Amino acid sequence: MPSLDPSRDVVALTADLVDIASESFDEQAIADAVEAVLRAAPHLDVVRDGHTLVARTDLGRAERVVVAGHLDTVPVNGNFPSRLEDGVLWGLGSCDMKGGVAVALRLAAHLSEPSRDVTYVFYEAEEVAAVHNGLGRLARERPELLAGDFAILMEPSDGGIEAGCQGTMRFDVVTRGERSHSARSWMGSNAIHAAHQVLARLNAYEPRRVDIDGLEYREGLNAVLVNGGVAGNVIPDECRVTVNYRFAPDRDEAAALAHVREVFDGFELEVTDSSPGALPGLSRPAVQDFVAAVGGEVKPKFGWTDVSQFTRLGVPAVNYGPGDPLFAHKADEHVPVEQLRQVEERMNRWLGA
Amino acid sequence: MPSLDPSRDVVALTADLVDIASESFDEQAIADAVEAVLRAAPHLDVVRDGHTLVARTDLGRAERVVVAGHLDTVPVNGNFPSRLEDGVLWGLGSCDMKGGVAVALRLAAHLSEPSRDVTYVFYEAEEVAAVHNGLGRLARERPELLAGDFAILMEPSDGGIEAGCQGTMRFDVVTRGERSHSARSWMGSNAIHAAHQVLARLNAYEPRRVDIDGLEYREGLNAVLVNGGVAGNVIPDECRVTVNYRFAPDRDEAAALAHVREVFDGFELEVTDSSPGALPGLSRPAVQDFVAAVGGEVKPKFGWTDVSQFTRLGVPAVNYGPGDPLFAHKADEHVPVEQLRQVEERMNRWLGA
Repeated sequence: MPSLDPSRDVVALTADLVDIASESFDEQAIADAVEAVLRAAPHLDVVRDGHTLVARTDLGRAERVVVAGHLDTVPVNGNFPSRLEDGVLWGLGSCDMKGGVAVALRLAAHLSEPSRDVTYVFYEAEEVAAVHNGLGRLARERPELLAGDFAILMEPSDGGIEAGCQGTMRFDVVTRGERSHSARSWMGSNAIHAAHQVLARLNAYEPRRVDIDGLEYREGLNAVLVNGGVAGNVIPDECRVTVNYRFAPDRDEAAALAHVREVFDGFELEVTDSSPGALPGLSRPAVQDFVAAVGGEVKPKFGWTDVSQFTRLGVPAVNYGPGDPLFAHKADEHVPVEQLRQVEERMNRWLGA
Repeated sequence: MPSLDPSRDVVALTADLVDIASESFDEQAIADAVEAVLRAAPHLDVVRDGHTLVARTDLGRAERVVVAGHLDTVPVNGNFPSRLEDGVLWGLGSCDMKGGVAVALRLAAHLSEPSRDVTYVFYEAEEVAAVHNGLGRLARERPELLAGDFAILMEPSDGGIEAGCQGTMRFDVVTRGERSHSARSWMGSNAIHAAHQVLARLNAYEPRRVDIDGLEYREGLNAVLVNGGVAGNVIPDECRVTVNYRFAPDRDEAAALAHVREVFDGFELEVTDSSPGALPGLSRPAVQDFVAAVGGEVKPKFGWTDVSQFTRLGVPAVNYGPGDPLFAHKADEHVPVEQLRQVEERMNRWLGA
């Protein structure tokens, strides 16, 4: 069974976390290792729920901060295990988001007297359909565990603060036909051929760019999966194009759905997954305080993150973590060592007593 | 273990064959049952090769006839087990081609003194890529087992004689892109979107119709499978459209390949499966003799059948069997009882001593 040692520096600890494979739905080993670290810290109350962990200080401070990160990764893509080279740590999850998890885990283990009470959340299944998301489950079933005045989601933000997040929706565009032997194709009707207009509309689509609070959000509408066919000699009777729509936070889920229904007018749509965005909330005092303490420019968050879970609970939240999010989910995913250290140092400065 | 009783009439025996599930690559049970029937007939020499069976009389007749049928079916489609209703037998394989197998199996079991020596072949894996085909394996490795003056492939031909067959070729049209997180899709390149032109060309394609020896052949070019994508939040880096080209027998495999390369000009092609057609051969004396004995109109065969295997071995061959081939591989596959009896009666008349 793999174990973790929070006395190792943040770079080594990030590498150790990367080297525990944790593709979504396979988080048992990493959750066990993180739990052992948390349970060894006498200043933390620890709760486990599935492969999701919540660890809290209870020092009666005036303010409570939530620091959260997910433990899972997308599937491996020739980038496992980790590799440290010339000040850069490479590997699956190094950027998204085991660097942030390493920072949070070291804060949790060592910061016995933080300036604010802290709730650390390490959770499962962020990289798959929202219904599986460990933080979402807590928000629905045990929201008291997530209570706080401000939340920091340690998703990669290139070491700067990213505000808000875009919404995300997944749906299948389904075309149907009729099976027949492919030697007598005129007796059937080809569902894959019928999907040509679906792909053509996707290919021609021009995504929106929207300005909110001075931040520019960029949308995207993309086929992520396509599946159709029965056998090599049968005219297919069904084809499914799974589309992911990333929408700016000025659109709610209903408006996003209305938009994609318009784009795919005439086609059958089955929505499988939907999560709202979050407005940047730059005017809120808690956000302004954190921005002032940590410093740097505030940018828009393109990716959906669990910031929106906190928004729904009424807790202001931002993304702040090491790693350039442009490399998340890519074969050449990596995180600069310098950024790991900088984020840790600033979080320590802000939360240190 | 299921068993078969060749003393049951041809309708009951067809139903019994349908009720032994035998999707391609799962032919053990049906081959065992057929083998037991063949081994019980003292006038037959039986050879088993994988799940393929060859049973021969050796009476020193002037002529040897090969009677062949495949044991496998396409995947089930809500049409298992068999159902007899108002003179029609319904069910997976009833048409393609367990009716023909039942006729051949009854001939093999009962015709101890045929007018010509007969080689019965019951073989595996016809409904999948040519490389797995049991008859093809015999043709390559043990061609002496298939020697003869004439071959009858008991594929469904609506009780008439079908001459020649179309060739078939399968290939993947591959589009490639670059993975990225779907929240930042502009960092990647979408391989599924890139396939829109592939589907558009297929959808617009006008298949040829060709006249050969007075018979009209109809071609077809169809996507049979499509697959692409990595995960619900990753821009896909590969998409594969598997296309099946059915070509008239005036085109050989090289000409067929040249044609599809032209249709998909600019795209990457990977050929996975290719089998030539067979010209109708209506001028050959052996074919003319059979036509005269059995009677009825001769039609072109649209589907690829193993007729082309015999053509390559220099053995004239036709398709002749019960069942309308238009219903092969369809959910409502069926065979008329009357046609089962008629084909059996005519084969008996032709081969009876």
